[in-house]
Amino acid sequence: MGLSVYVFPGAHHNRFEHALGCMHLAQKALASLCEKGVAISTEESEALQIALLFHDIGHGPFSHAIEKALLPGIAHEQISEGLMREINNEFDGALEMALSIFNNSYPRKFFHQLLVGQVDLDRLDYLKRDSFYTGAQEGNINSSRLISMMQVVDDQLVFEQKASYSLEKFLLARRLMYWQVYLHKTSLVSELLLVKILDRARLLLSEGKLLDGSKHLLTLLSSAASKDLFTTHLWQNFVALDDADVWYSIKQWQQQEDFILKDLSRRLIQRDLFQIQMQNSDFKAQELAALKKQWGAVYQDSKVGEAYVFSGSVTNQTYSSDKHKLLLMDGAGNIIPIHQHESFTALMKYTKAQTQYYLCTPKN
Amino acid sequence: MGLSVYVFPGAHHNRFEHALGCMHLAQKALASLCEKGVAISTEESEALQIALLFHDIGHGPFSHAIEKALLPGIAHEQISEGLMREINNEFDGALEMALSIFNNSYPRKFFHQLLVGQVDLDRLDYLKRDSFYTGAQEGNINSSRLISMMQVVDDQLVFEQKASYSLEKFLLARRLMYWQVYLHKTSLVSELLLVKILDRARLLLSEGKLLDGSKHLLTLLSSAASKDLFTTHLWQNFVALDDADVWYSIKQWQQQEDFILKDLSRRLIQRDLFQIQMQNSDFKAQELAALKKQWGAVYQDSKVGEAYVFSGSVTNQTYSSDKHKLLLMDGAGNIIPIHQHESFTALMKYTKAQTQYYLCTPKN
Amino acid sequence: MGLSVYVFPGAHHNRFEHALGCMHLAQKALASLCEKGVAISTEESEALQIALLFHDIGHGPFSHAIEKALLPGIAHEQISEGLMREINNEFDGALEMALSIFNNSYPRKFFHQLLVGQVDLDRLDYLKRDSFYTGAQEGNINSSRLISMMQVVDDQLVFEQKASYSLEKFLLARRLMYWQVYLHKTSLVSELLLVKILDRARLLLSEGKLLDGSKHLLTLLSSAASKDLFTTHLWQNFVALDDADVWYSIKQWQQQEDFILKDLSRRLIQRDLFQIQMQNSDFKAQELAALKKQWGAVYQDSKVGEAYVFSGSVTNQTYSSDKHKLLLMDGAGNIIPIHQHESFTALMKYTKAQTQYYLCTPKN
Amino acid sequence: MGLSVYVFPGAHHNRFEHALGCMHLAQKALASLCEKGVAISTEESEALQIALLFHDIGHGPFSHAIEKALLPGIAHEQISEGLMREINNEFDGALEMALSIFNNSYPRKFFHQLLVGQVDLDRLDYLKRDSFYTGAQEGNINSSRLISMMQVVDDQLVFEQKASYSLEKFLLARRLMYWQVYLHKTSLVSELLLVKILDRARLLLSEGKLLDGSKHLLTLLSSAASKDLFTTHLWQNFVALDDADVWYSIKQWQQQEDFILKDLSRRLIQRDLFQIQMQNSDFKAQELAALKKQWGAVYQDSKVGEAYVFSGSVTNQTYSSDKHKLLLMDGAGNIIPIHQHESFTALMKYTKAQTQYYLCTPKN
Repeated sequence: MGLSVYVFPGAHHNRFEHALGCMHLAQKALASLCEKGVAISTEESEALQIALLFHDIGHGPFSHAIEKALLPGIAHEQISEGLMREINNEFDGALEMALSIFNNSYPRKFFHQLLVGQVDLDRLDYLKRDSFYTGAQEGNINSSRLISMMQVVDDQLVFEQKASYSLEKFLLARRLMYWQVYLHKTSLVSELLLVKILDRARLLLSEGKLLDGSKHLLTLLSSAASKDLFTTHLWQNFVALDDADVWYSIKQWQQQEDFILKDLSRRLIQRDLFQIQMQNSDFKAQELAALKKQWGAVYQDSKVGEAYVFSGSVTNQTYSSDKHKLLLMDGAGNIIPIHQHESFTALMKYTKAQTQYYLCTPKN
Repeated sequence: MGLSVYVFPGAHHNRFEHALGCMHLAQKALASLCEKGVAISTEESEALQIALLFHDIGHGPFSHAIEKALLPGIAHEQISEGLMREINNEFDGALEMALSIFNNSYPRKFFHQLLVGQVDLDRLDYLKRDSFYTGAQEGNINSSRLISMMQVVDDQLVFEQKASYSLEKFLLARRLMYWQVYLHKTSLVSELLLVKILDRARLLLSEGKLLDGSKHLLTLLSSAASKDLFTTHLWQNFVALDDADVWYSIKQWQQQEDFILKDLSRRLIQRDLFQIQMQNSDFKAQELAALKKQWGAVYQDSKVGEAYVFSGSVTNQTYSSDKHKLLLMDGAGNIIPIHQHESFTALMKYTKAQTQYYLCTPKN
Repeated sequence: MGLSVYVFPGAHHNRFEHALGCMHLAQKALASLCEKGVAISTEESEALQIALLFHDIGHGPFSHAIEKALLPGIAHEQISEGLMREINNEFDGALEMALSIFNNSYPRKFFHQLLVGQVDLDRLDYLKRDSFYTGAQEGNINSSRLISMMQVVDDQLVFEQKASYSLEKFLLARRLMYWQVYLHKTSLVSELLLVKILDRARLLLSEGKLLDGSKHLLTLLSSAASKDLFTTHLWQNFVALDDADVWYSIKQWQQQEDFILKDLSRRLIQRDLFQIQMQNSDFKAQELAALKKQWGAVYQDSKVGEAYVFSGSVTNQTYSSDKHKLLLMDGAGNIIPIHQHESFTALMKYTKAQTQYYLCTPKN
Repeated sequence: MGLSVYVFPGAHHNRFEHALGCMHLAQKALASLCEKGVAISTEESEALQIALLFHDIGHGPFSHAIEKALLPGIAHEQISEGLMREINNEFDGALEMALSIFNNSYPRKFFHQLLVGQVDLDRLDYLKRDSFYTGAQEGNINSSRLISMMQVVDDQLVFEQKASYSLEKFLLARRLMYWQVYLHKTSLVSELLLVKILDRARLLLSEGKLLDGSKHLLTLLSSAASKDLFTTHLWQNFVALDDADVWYSIKQWQQQEDFILKDLSRRLIQRDLFQIQMQNSDFKAQELAALKKQWGAVYQDSKVGEAYVFSGSVTNQTYSSDKHKLLLMDGAGNIIPIHQHESFTALMKYTKAQTQYYLCTPKN
């Protein structure tokens, strides 16, 4: 959950628990589908569980928040697949089918849909888990009810019609969790600060400066990541990296010479965060330029002004009809994509993608 | 909750607990507003609590379900007010201010708005309570968070901007509870059956037939209710009436001579309910006529066919901008009705009134 | 739960839900035992579920509270068994095996032990259910954990050693629920009042007085119950009786001529209860006599004094080593009765039977 | 919670949240006592909140688990008090009264009793919190009910008699949490491993070996702690130390030359834990010697045998009548220590101190 813990003090849960939770939900979904007469072999059952256990293995510390700062240009899904391939080699091909489910080459599509879809087991786990640990009741969905209403028709995952209110609740819970938790402005500004720190360290290293801190982290920040991550030693550093490396390094950097690195590190450790403003439209270039100048003057260093005033945007799309269609089966067995379903037409409009623009500066 | 217990076996909770719950929420809201500096006198505080404790006192057994069958033409709010007047007389005017809050003649409008509004204490209590007892998690709203975000400006109730996600959740929870619980088709058909039974008993009594059962109930069903309820003896019968009178009578009526009364009573007691179909458009007169004829033939009695095939509609309006405006106050202190607020425009369309049409017949 | 609702306003739940809950737990226990390799036939599985669904069918309204006032000398287990026999006849012997489990004649003893034992499915359901509806967190036991630690050895039910803390919690939760909820002094005095009312009605009927009220109830109160309940018409009246009959009758009796019946009925309806004192030792005969005389004087009628001052006792035994031994299996497979187990010796002393004596009078 | 997270994957919560929670409960207790008429000045109210916010500030990472390995001979209470004194100096004496509450020199004793007692706010917070995050329902106590039953008599904290069942539940919940969670054998063996690692590092440093890792940690492990912690630079290293320093160092030590340090570090990181046996009596010296010899042979190094076989004991005392008496006030206002109270005599015997002995070895 990135740095949500700066806002929701209980949100310390991590990937490991989420991976166990996903596998647990896979077991429940498999049991429910078997009971409904869907033929699933032991090998398929194991493969789905493996796929869910490993699907997020490519995430580094702090998850999405610093993915790009650590390995620019590589998506975590690529790393997950790469790591699964490494493990597959080590275990003589035991993950072969799990891999084909993961990259959607397995012919029975519902296995992949349970993993990656509008209402997949991944989301069923993390929404409920994040709601529990943050205390944001808005995300507390009824995952067992949703699982019990899954059905498979022509190897496609569909939901029985009577799931419609629970699906509606799910889509809305996801929307609310995005704005209230995942994109909460204080988490967001903390994570942006963290990225700024790593970017600054990368810059200093590229200029030949020596930095204290975790060797794994320094190695990653000194190298340009390449798409061929797994042909280099980099991936081992990435795998060995965890929160402790990042926190330890940032604590060390509080004593570093470079003012920007030192000050940003101190700010994050002492929760002396930047100010953040959010609005529905983009901030103007002029406004930014003026603020950069103003803060450059405050710090008597235009480079600091440049670094300490920044803007960007975040987007949340509750439902996308393009990629993964959510299918609903009515009492007569007809299957329609939910966004074409009478009861969901209005909902779809309401939950369309929303973009918010932010602007950060030091606090006055 | 009418006969929701036929679908949700835990939903036995009653008005008494709801009344206590509303008074409890009133105490919380008063404490929170006082802390924010709203001046509220001891008398006003007591009056609001009394108003909430008594606001539903005019409900008869099974609530909305059989209101019209018992006292046709009189709304429960009228009865509540009438009973409060009786009690007010008995207690030498101690309920005077509570009455003025109840009928919205008290000048400081926020007191009435806490009682009757889009997001009032009544709804905050019943949504959470009904969600708890039915197990329908969709209605589990965060009432203490909503209360803590209430504010009073110019004696109007407003919500602070940061309540917006909780308000969104509230409006959606209410929408989902309507379709999933309050208008659940099995509760609905049970309640329609109950109304049919009472209507039939009223008809038989008007024809001079003698019926067993609770005297209070028989008295009510034998009389035409008048607007001047409180000038007659009827209101005493109404006040003395509870679920036991209704159930006892229906149990007795299983042995009554009239086939329709006997059979409908047996059906309700033994949960041998009618079939119910629901759709978005009205059922056609022809279809109804044909079904009436068909069931008349089955029972070899056209009157039974007439009585056992019936249709109607139910409507749920999550938010009505006409009557009680929900006001939002932004950081700068501006106050706008929520339905004009940028973030709620799409929501308002999505939650507009929906009507469902039903058709009931015996089961094949 | 008798009249616990007079103290815990949410405690409206009834036998029907408990029966469903017990059957549900039976399904969970059966699935868990099967997974552990215990051989259970489909017939046995169904029989256990039936036994749990019907085990309390012999309870009348208000449960234990008025059992003796309605059918003196007959235990509810006898009635349950009798009703199961009637249903068995109706369904051509389909309940044969369930009956043998119920009356402990089935050779594989663990089925009966799941139904009646120190930690049986009946108790697992009602403790959790009563805790939920009363809000008394003290009874919130971990029933799924306890079920998952059940094992069968030589057709005896045993608990795995690692269940020991959960068993300890269970025994204490039961002890606390007894004193805090089931034997709460306000529930107790309400239930004693209810019994007094029924006893008074029985006396008046035996003297030839005519009373209003439910026919089923009046029939039961007019007859001496015999052990051969099922050879008479009485059992049909008993089966047809529910809470509505009792409440309806008591409401009617508020207008009855007899002062004691009229006054006690009014007291119960209006919650104008008696005063109750509780202590660890018996109340002295002299004290009672003096109080009876005193209250006789107040009411100017010695018979009222006689009726309105009464005493008795209640006992709670958390664990009885005599009848149903709770067996624990250690890691090495040894099985010992829990009361001989090192870790439970002290607990057993602490949870030994406790008796409390009560004395009731009108309030001063 | 030390390394409980190795057993209960959700148990990531930390001191910071606990400190906030304690302060929150202090606010609730203060409000409740004020409402009951206990005179409490604003200064006292603030002092109690400060005392609860800071009471655990002297805890290092992993809490009790490694306290002795980091600063041998100094209790965390001393460090807490020392740090509070430092902050007091910085804030010109603002913590003076909080300090006197903390060290029990403040004359009104109930303030200290709310902080340190049999049933204090510290315990009320951590039992409920630990139960929530571990999922061990056995510890889920009713803290708001207990707080609402606190009373102050002659400046002593007492509990109203009606709290007796809740107190009983509290004492048992604490007992169960100790054995089921805090002293769970897998947490215990993980924490013992962690201590072994730190002890080994300290030994190597004392022999002049150079080690990688966090400077703060290495400084602490290189120095003998003295009672005069605050006159040295050591306390600054201690304050700067957090989990990241410890984890980062242990991750580094996996590549260290010394076999024992390297292997133990790898074991902890990879969860390749030692085996642990627990029993009620002490393990025999002979048995230990034989095992040490045996494992020395396996590793072909008697020093490894010496280091990898070790034993010790853990004790849990649910209630101690010696130090902090828990006082109960009956209806008549009499105050008695709970361990002399009739209803608690048996309980006290049952919850007396229990010692368990453990023996650890590598896994076969």
